[in-house]
Amino acid sequence: MPFQWPLRVYIEDTDLGGIVYYVNYLKFMERARTELLRQCGRSQQELMADDIIFVVTRTDCRYLSPARLDDELLVEVSIEQASGVRVSFQQRIIRQSDERLLCEADVDVACVRASDMRPVRWPYNLFESMKTVTKSLPAAEEK
Amino acid sequence: MPFQWPLRVYIEDTDLGGIVYYVNYLKFMERARTELLRQCGRSQQELMADDIIFVVTRTDCRYLSPARLDDELLVEVSIEQASGVRVSFQQRIIRQSDERLLCEADVDVACVRASDMRPVRWPYNLFESMKTVTKSLPAAEEK
Amino acid sequence: MPFQWPLRVYIEDTDLGGIVYYVNYLKFMERARTELLRQCGRSQQELMADDIIFVVTRTDCRYLSPARLDDELLVEVSIEQASGVRVSFQQRIIRQSDERLLCEADVDVACVRASDMRPVRWPYNLFESMKTVTKSLPAAEEK
Amino acid sequence: MPFQWPLRVYIEDTDLGGIVYYVNYLKFMERARTELLRQCGRSQQELMADDIIFVVTRTDCRYLSPARLDDELLVEVSIEQASGVRVSFQQRIIRQSDERLLCEADVDVACVRASDMRPVRWPYNLFESMKTVTKSLPAAEEK
Repeated sequence: MPFQWPLRVYIEDTDLGGIVYYVNYLKFMERARTELLRQCGRSQQELMADDIIFVVTRTDCRYLSPARLDDELLVEVSIEQASGVRVSFQQRIIRQSDERLLCEADVDVACVRASDMRPVRWPYNLFESMKTVTKSLPAAEEK
Repeated sequence: MPFQWPLRVYIEDTDLGGIVYYVNYLKFMERARTELLRQCGRSQQELMADDIIFVVTRTDCRYLSPARLDDELLVEVSIEQASGVRVSFQQRIIRQSDERLLCEADVDVACVRASDMRPVRWPYNLFESMKTVTKSLPAAEEK
Repeated sequence: MPFQWPLRVYIEDTDLGGIVYYVNYLKFMERARTELLRQCGRSQQELMADDIIFVVTRTDCRYLSPARLDDELLVEVSIEQASGVRVSFQQRIIRQSDERLLCEADVDVACVRASDMRPVRWPYNLFESMKTVTKSLPAAEEK
Repeated sequence: MPFQWPLRVYIEDTDLGGIVYYVNYLKFMERARTELLRQCGRSQQELMADDIIFVVTRTDCRYLSPARLDDELLVEVSIEQASGVRVSFQQRIIRQSDERLLCEADVDVACVRASDMRPVRWPYNLFESMKTVTKSLPAAEEK
């Protein structure tokens, strides 16, 4: 079961095609990752205070069907793969009314020491609680 | 009592100053107006189907104190003045944690016939229900 | 003669109405102020290194006519009023093809010491050279 | 030789990390594709009048090094692969001052009939002139 975060489409999200501007799905996906972090009891403000920031290193996004104004969306996050310094999130955006899959993406996020921008290991406790919340990564794949 | 809509500040809303980019408060204010409309039982999609669109004609925004990442904000909407074709909304953005007023604005919105972009009167029912939801405009000012 | 900065409308700037999303005109206006600063031989990066940042304290924007995809716009900046710590810019956005005025705004910008966020006087040299570039503020109004 | 389009980083493009918000590189890349189209003598407005729109179906973006405020960037476009209804653009963003590669992406764009959203072949003339402008796709790969 992935972590799920609901959101609504507003005018600010649309473009002249009358649909959500494709670039904005990446914002929606980040909101869900931020809320997953919060669900794990951490905020990015706190992590910055610990000299840790997250850096997105890759976004691979496939656009299947457009969202429109007023649509209620569900943004899903699961953890696909994890190495010591990088976590690959798999994300999907689904329209609630008809459960249609609109967009899916792989998003790689590295953990970096803010003071010198060197890669560091993800905080172990955070990583474990993200797995618990998303129930997504079998133990065998962690090695 | 104004209508109130809560929202959260995400990374997408910030700028290099470490605070919410001032331009984005106008987006937050529009979200609250959209939700007030929805509270009145109408969506902009429906109104468009009735050949009606809303056009923002003026935004006068005073920035008092900055919002930051993870802040929970409350966006308020009340109706300040109304003529036949134009409604002036008074809006305020307050941080929930310390109830600090961050930003206030007057936003004028005209009602326009989509097919020829001519000004038309606000739909009477919509206007009445917005007043009921916000309880903001005394009867005497409507004349 | 105001300072003028040309720019082009892209899809990212539009909304489902098929026109430029009104919030984005404030971004266009900031680009022109940034380029005026650069024309005066200063960048915001340099000013930050001198512990100075600019804070927008008010934007009062009137939307007269919409811009559309591919439009070439001219963003104007002139200095309307200036006190020691605050400068009021008057800005206009004009479509180049038909010289139509699309939007005009008053934008107040305060000068602040970054380290403690206290208001400070605008750097005198910068202020003088902005006046020279824009030729906008008669000497009498400066008192 | 890819097609190249220069642009400048403004405050609107940054986030609280003090760097360009990664989502915005996709906007920069679209500006360059739009200008390539214009270089070929076509605008998206005209194509819409011919009942043709372009739909982005995939963006795969790798972020290598951050851009900062005031940076002058060069956005490159070349054509990597092309089938009848879809073109894969390869795009790179380079900082002009040190020629550092900041970001690269593959962007797939489908050609669609606006009236019924059915895939259609890219207009042949447009496709040929894009190849001429970018000189990117050897004849052998077109088959």
